[in-house]
Amino acid sequence: MTDANTTLDQWLRDAHAMEEQAEQMLSAQASRIENYPSLKARIEQHIEETRSQRDRLEACIEARGASSSGIKDLAGRAAAVMQGLGGMFAGDEVVKGAMAGYTFEHFEIASYRALSAAARAAGDERTARVCDEICREEEQMASWLADNLGPVAETYLQREAAGSDAAKR
Amino acid sequence: MTDANTTLDQWLRDAHAMEEQAEQMLSAQASRIENYPSLKARIEQHIEETRSQRDRLEACIEARGASSSGIKDLAGRAAAVMQGLGGMFAGDEVVKGAMAGYTFEHFEIASYRALSAAARAAGDERTARVCDEICREEEQMASWLADNLGPVAETYLQREAAGSDAAKR
Repeated sequence: MTDANTTLDQWLRDAHAMEEQAEQMLSAQASRIENYPSLKARIEQHIEETRSQRDRLEACIEARGASSSGIKDLAGRAAAVMQGLGGMFAGDEVVKGAMAGYTFEHFEIASYRALSAAARAAGDERTARVCDEICREEEQMASWLADNLGPVAETYLQREAAGSDAAKR
Repeated sequence: MTDANTTLDQWLRDAHAMEEQAEQMLSAQASRIENYPSLKARIEQHIEETRSQRDRLEACIEARGASSSGIKDLAGRAAAVMQGLGGMFAGDEVVKGAMAGYTFEHFEIASYRALSAAARAAGDERTARVCDEICREEEQMASWLADNLGPVAETYLQREAAGSDAAKR
């Protein structure tokens, strides 16, 4: 028998680890992209959002009197997930990266929806509002990627067919 | 230098493997759920859709004169991804399962968006239309899960707080 506050603290720590992993993944991705400037710019914007999300989660965890430590194991598991997603498609790096990013955004969206419900169930409206706010930012990033996945794939295929070195990155 | 048709054939085989993996994952999930009847019913409906999606992809691959074999390696990688997603959150099985399902739906949506663009770039309108149609089914499943993630998390937390054995499954 576990109360809602204990579960909420655990889920908040999980989300904090998820954002740390997201920052690493997005930074690595942005630094590799060379010839898809609008994708690179949107990822760079989302790196700033991700850092702010991690800070806002940290503030929630501290306000609740919990600790954000003890998350190394989970961050490692998140890394394994991303590695798996990255390796799924034999296609090129930029298309595969955009797909992995879009997928990971929805893992984050799912997390914040569950977290928001958990926070309201525990009577912590402040944390619920922060989760809703972060969730909207993740949805905006996901929506941008959804609109741009097709165009990125088309550009890649055109460049690949032309034998251009610019295709992959 | 690879032409758009070769890349399209590879991506179609990848999607076929993805649907085989999805069927296994959804079947395992549905069989374990006991006390969340609407979630179980929606997953069972999506198992039928998933089988039909696999068949429609197979028809596209055959119509293009390609083969759907040689996909074992990729299906294995998809399994690793799902295992990673499943292990991410320390929370209970049903919430974690719904989150993993929601995330995997978006991996599928991303795949069909890229595939649809690739098929149009290769001049294969028939395959593009099948991919668009499957994508809409995945979006409907994702949308149902999005609406139900919060309620599932709430029900879980209430049952857990009451010490009910019905919480986890």
